[in-house]
Amino acid sequence: MTESTSTSAYDALGFVFHPRSVAVVGASTSQGPGGFVEAILEMGFDGALYPVNPKASELAGLTCYPSLADVPGDVDYVISSIPAPLVPQLVEDAAAKKTKVIHFFTAGFSETGDDERADLESKTVARCRELGIRVIGPNCMGLYVPAAGLSFMPGMPREPGSVAFISQSGANAGEFCRAAGARGVRYSKVISYGNGVDLREADFFEYCAEDPDTDVIAAYIEGVKDGPRFLRAVSLAASRKPVIILKGGRTEAGGRATASHTGSLAGSLQIFDAACRQAGAIRVDTMDQLVDAVTATRFISRLSGPGVAIIGGGGGHSVLAADEVASAGLRVPALPQEVQRKLMDFTPVAGTSVRNPVDTNVGFGLQGNKAISDTIRIAAEAEEIDVILYHTSFSWGPATRGVVDPVKLAREGAVMLGEVMRETDKPVVVVVRPPLGAHGVEATVAFQDEAAAQGLATFPAVGRAADALATLLWAQRLRQEGA
Amino acid sequence: MTESTSTSAYDALGFVFHPRSVAVVGASTSQGPGGFVEAILEMGFDGALYPVNPKASELAGLTCYPSLADVPGDVDYVISSIPAPLVPQLVEDAAAKKTKVIHFFTAGFSETGDDERADLESKTVARCRELGIRVIGPNCMGLYVPAAGLSFMPGMPREPGSVAFISQSGANAGEFCRAAGARGVRYSKVISYGNGVDLREADFFEYCAEDPDTDVIAAYIEGVKDGPRFLRAVSLAASRKPVIILKGGRTEAGGRATASHTGSLAGSLQIFDAACRQAGAIRVDTMDQLVDAVTATRFISRLSGPGVAIIGGGGGHSVLAADEVASAGLRVPALPQEVQRKLMDFTPVAGTSVRNPVDTNVGFGLQGNKAISDTIRIAAEAEEIDVILYHTSFSWGPATRGVVDPVKLAREGAVMLGEVMRETDKPVVVVVRPPLGAHGVEATVAFQDEAAAQGLATFPAVGRAADALATLLWAQRLRQEGA
Repeated sequence: MTESTSTSAYDALGFVFHPRSVAVVGASTSQGPGGFVEAILEMGFDGALYPVNPKASELAGLTCYPSLADVPGDVDYVISSIPAPLVPQLVEDAAAKKTKVIHFFTAGFSETGDDERADLESKTVARCRELGIRVIGPNCMGLYVPAAGLSFMPGMPREPGSVAFISQSGANAGEFCRAAGARGVRYSKVISYGNGVDLREADFFEYCAEDPDTDVIAAYIEGVKDGPRFLRAVSLAASRKPVIILKGGRTEAGGRATASHTGSLAGSLQIFDAACRQAGAIRVDTMDQLVDAVTATRFISRLSGPGVAIIGGGGGHSVLAADEVASAGLRVPALPQEVQRKLMDFTPVAGTSVRNPVDTNVGFGLQGNKAISDTIRIAAEAEEIDVILYHTSFSWGPATRGVVDPVKLAREGAVMLGEVMRETDKPVVVVVRPPLGAHGVEATVAFQDEAAAQGLATFPAVGRAADALATLLWAQRLRQEGA
Repeated sequence: MTESTSTSAYDALGFVFHPRSVAVVGASTSQGPGGFVEAILEMGFDGALYPVNPKASELAGLTCYPSLADVPGDVDYVISSIPAPLVPQLVEDAAAKKTKVIHFFTAGFSETGDDERADLESKTVARCRELGIRVIGPNCMGLYVPAAGLSFMPGMPREPGSVAFISQSGANAGEFCRAAGARGVRYSKVISYGNGVDLREADFFEYCAEDPDTDVIAAYIEGVKDGPRFLRAVSLAASRKPVIILKGGRTEAGGRATASHTGSLAGSLQIFDAACRQAGAIRVDTMDQLVDAVTATRFISRLSGPGVAIIGGGGGHSVLAADEVASAGLRVPALPQEVQRKLMDFTPVAGTSVRNPVDTNVGFGLQGNKAISDTIRIAAEAEEIDVILYHTSFSWGPATRGVVDPVKLAREGAVMLGEVMRETDKPVVVVVRPPLGAHGVEATVAFQDEAAAQGLATFPAVGRAADALATLLWAQRLRQEGA
């Protein structure tokens, strides 16, 4: 057990993330939830994969074994998807197979509040310790590690990335990966650890702190069992890379829910906040904020200050954008006169403004992208401007009327924005207001994909982009203080 | 000019909203933005519609006239889509046609900050006054009144409804109508009035206060020219129906943008807030909040208190939902023991909780909807519960795997929720987390459509639903105090 951070948690836990063989015990024979076999196959796992279920002889093209004892050879990693009462026998079978890690998807332990079930949990973890088996869970989704071919649900991106996510909740792990994934975020290690009876947040923070594949660490945490060790682990991690934590159970009602969910004591938010601040980590309130902050951190290497140039179409949109950016604590400085003059050279006078917000009707598309590209480039020349916020949408305008191919228009727009960002030395973030029905979805998705490929951070609302930029500035300051 | 509210603004302005003939001067011959002819045809206008443009002889199947003077007979309502310098001649032509109202889509007047253009605006409005012509605008989208067959952009719902929207911004009018429209909100009168040189917010508030087709009044306002009259008009309106106002320019940066946009002085937010409160109207900060508050107000006739039962799947989702509802100032009371016992009778023990939030894995679909319907009905029995918040999504789970028809599943789910709401005497609101890509869009849209038909308020996030419910409670209290 790596209790101290002086021995390398990275070396000590490496085997957890790189199993050579995996057995899924209680593998689902229907297409219901669970689906570990399907998810791991989809991820291209290149080790041995053994479905175990007495009701089937074959599953997803693989031989299915009646019990773990029937699997040929050793099994590094076991996923338990069987009911809790069957777990003691599984642990003994795993020991015989020289198993190193059991991930208990199985729920129905201490989190139920039932004494007998809590007792079964204690006995299970004690027996695993005796046998030298590490435990992930119970009551969790386990691992999604694309580089190792592991996944906990179908439909996850196969390509690996640089963001680690440490989550006490499986639903939130899935939600985060999908939501941030749609913005182009990709993952090094995603860990859903549920009740965390053995391996838990501190272990994973220590590991990710040293993991060369991880540049940003995000986490969803309901309760911490060993506060001082957690603080040491987060401090270590935050001294090396950005750490952003969503704390579940920040209210009394949420705290009651964490007890039912993972048997966690949510504890005092004030103490948690003080610990985060001391460690140099950021705490956010909502899943949206987590996704937004990680997106900003992943795509913007450095924000030099709070000056935002807001560029886009629609006078009312521009007014509200200015209000939301200013409310987030950022600045929307009026552009210098000479910059305004340059913009006036080609911006139509009626229904526009070049002051900042820049309300321009030169959008993507029909007339080409040069005017909008020039607008961004010229606004970025102003010294007071640290970041460009460009806002748009694909649910109306010419793109919706069959005049041009909206998907092509969207892709070209994203390419142009990437080009202009590389030409200026200032980050460009893009707000794409979501389509309000099935209409415009394809173009929006195409735009987001291409924008991510171009290295652009995208957000679904100006207020959310502004909050993420403010959080990024705050995080930079906090880490500078700590450094 | 109706300066006093003692004469009926409703009678005095009725002709504005029910023209018998409409001319679109400068009608677009391409499919670009503007598109008034197309929009009005789409809305089924049953009066005479005259496109005017010297470059075409026919437009959208209608005879197109070279000038307004060439149109046969009188024209009640003129839409001006020509450049500002051509406006003086148009006003004279309109007078000859006994025109009662000109809507100037035309921009490029006082909002540019240019003295000559501001002068043209003053002269235009003065001349219109002399001629007895009322003006909407300039620099605005004008009217969307489905019952009268008027619309300012294609793609708006044809069926009328009970919500009026008074907006100084055309972009925000479009955004609001589409966003709230996707939740099932429909409209009595939508007015984009831009610079508001003649008819402006106070006139429209007075009109909507008396309009029997309007039950809820929403507004986007950048600046008010006559404060005392505005306060009287809003007070009158709010004494009769809920009034919710989004104020653009609540920050210094936003205020600079309102000046460029509609030439408005944004003024002090404190004074505006005090006026709203005195009048019994609600002010919100963002477009999302406006859409959410109107949705809640339209679909929930009365909220009896702050007690929320949160029901849905996913332990982590449930924890965060409880945090967000409690943070909004609502209550998430633990359900009484006897209610918990009834729920435990059929809720699987592993991975669930029946305390509140109710984290249940009995979702829509494969196993039918009885279990989830029973869960809602039983939770609603608790005296502490005033409203049920059910959260779900259609972007993963069995519905995404081709096992069942996701659109059918979604519709059946919405019907079930409508049925159970009518069986209990408590409102049910539904949070549908948006799909994170093209996947799940169809089912989400189908669900929202059916939910609206069932009388259910839907929201895209728990936090947004919670804020809207808190706003609704506050609005009810404010109007009770005033009554």
